[in-house]
Amino acid sequence: MSKARDFSLRDKFATYNSMEVVEVAQGFARARLDVKPQHHNGLGTVHGGVLFTLADLAFAAASNFGEDTVVGINASMSFFKAASQGVLLAEAREVTRSAKLVAYEAKVTNDSGDIIAVFQGTGYIKSNSRVQK
Amino acid sequence: MSKARDFSLRDKFATYNSMEVVEVAQGFARARLDVKPQHHNGLGTVHGGVLFTLADLAFAAASNFGEDTVVGINASMSFFKAASQGVLLAEAREVTRSAKLVAYEAKVTNDSGDIIAVFQGTGYIKSNSRVQK
Amino acid sequence: MSKARDFSLRDKFATYNSMEVVEVAQGFARARLDVKPQHHNGLGTVHGGVLFTLADLAFAAASNFGEDTVVGINASMSFFKAASQGVLLAEAREVTRSAKLVAYEAKVTNDSGDIIAVFQGTGYIKSNSRVQK
Amino acid sequence: MSKARDFSLRDKFATYNSMEVVEVAQGFARARLDVKPQHHNGLGTVHGGVLFTLADLAFAAASNFGEDTVVGINASMSFFKAASQGVLLAEAREVTRSAKLVAYEAKVTNDSGDIIAVFQGTGYIKSNSRVQK
Repeated sequence: MSKARDFSLRDKFATYNSMEVVEVAQGFARARLDVKPQHHNGLGTVHGGVLFTLADLAFAAASNFGEDTVVGINASMSFFKAASQGVLLAEAREVTRSAKLVAYEAKVTNDSGDIIAVFQGTGYIKSNSRVQK
Repeated sequence: MSKARDFSLRDKFATYNSMEVVEVAQGFARARLDVKPQHHNGLGTVHGGVLFTLADLAFAAASNFGEDTVVGINASMSFFKAASQGVLLAEAREVTRSAKLVAYEAKVTNDSGDIIAVFQGTGYIKSNSRVQK
Repeated sequence: MSKARDFSLRDKFATYNSMEVVEVAQGFARARLDVKPQHHNGLGTVHGGVLFTLADLAFAAASNFGEDTVVGINASMSFFKAASQGVLLAEAREVTRSAKLVAYEAKVTNDSGDIIAVFQGTGYIKSNSRVQK
Repeated sequence: MSKARDFSLRDKFATYNSMEVVEVAQGFARARLDVKPQHHNGLGTVHGGVLFTLADLAFAAASNFGEDTVVGINASMSFFKAASQGVLLAEAREVTRSAKLVAYEAKVTNDSGDIIAVFQGTGYIKSNSRVQK
């Protein structure tokens, strides 16, 4: 089983909401969602919580790719364009990593390549050995 | 039907994930979630996307309570304590409102009253008349 | 010398820019600035960096009041209203504190009590003993 | 006079604190600071307000480069590494731009190229014609 698929399956909330990690590497991951009616808010567009979760899923997959366990401590998201259908992709990239902290940026795009939302996440590195995990 | 229940039902993503608005008034709302396994991330704790969605639901309910249509443009969330079961509540309160923008703060607490996460949302007021809506 | 004055004097950047802590207690601090032309941006209003620094000063004073050394790891600020003269106050209040992290909210107001900006800061507790400091 | 120098001079707060825009183009700007004792906080490292101001200066220069007047409505900053001396650079790049909003990311680096802080700014486009300005 691929690392991306493995990560997706462990994440119950992402799975329950039809989100999956489609690519993952050290410091990078891409997550994907095929928008369905249950992803909408009361205005008929994709819920901010969906966009956040998709970006956070990519952030978690990328930042936990290696031996470290990284937990999110803060995230900021800006919403630029409403989406209502089609495929959404979130791509997370590592901006920097220190002994204790990592910073990631993730962009959520629609199938025309328009940027729907931008996410900035900060994670705390809890452990960096196999034994502790 | 109460305004809170009405708002909850229109929000498909919240409904699909068992979240509901239990109280709403001008500038205030409370949303509730009874944690189930599908709300967990890969580490077995409540997913950041769940906490974000619950806070965002309370923010949306409170900021759209009156005649205005408010759309979120930015949100920042800090995660303090892991939760894995029980009831989670998100309470959103208006911090300030200008002609175009609103600021909200929402706190997510567990059933012991511990703060699990803190959310700060900024919304853009798109219209303020019935006609435009 | 008062704790508030003591804290202000140690902070060279705040002092250089005429900001001072006027009240400090466990989990709370108030910082003050009398706006002068050097606090303006290119549009003739108070610079976002001034509002951020004033809020951050109050956050730092409050979160470092006790024995702990707290360093800011993330801050988010929303700007609501332009200010150009008069007195600005920033009041920081602790939202929550865990073993490693603190969350603060600070509001910057003008002398009419209008909210100019809202700040949310997350800090990391580096040490909690006299010896380490 | 260059556009970069022109922008720097109009910004009184940046000038008063020895910061300058050294390069500016559509969607990009670089600001520079030679750290001096007055830029320090109470711990003897560069103040978070200095890092924020430097990033915000680059954001403002880049986002106001064309005919639009852009005002910051929200900014989030994560602090990764302490700096205490030398030259700091902030480079701001446009992430996306819609009819009303712009998103920028800015990185602050020291003279070894280490990332000191990461800034994410959201701006509101107030006008887009010469006449309105």
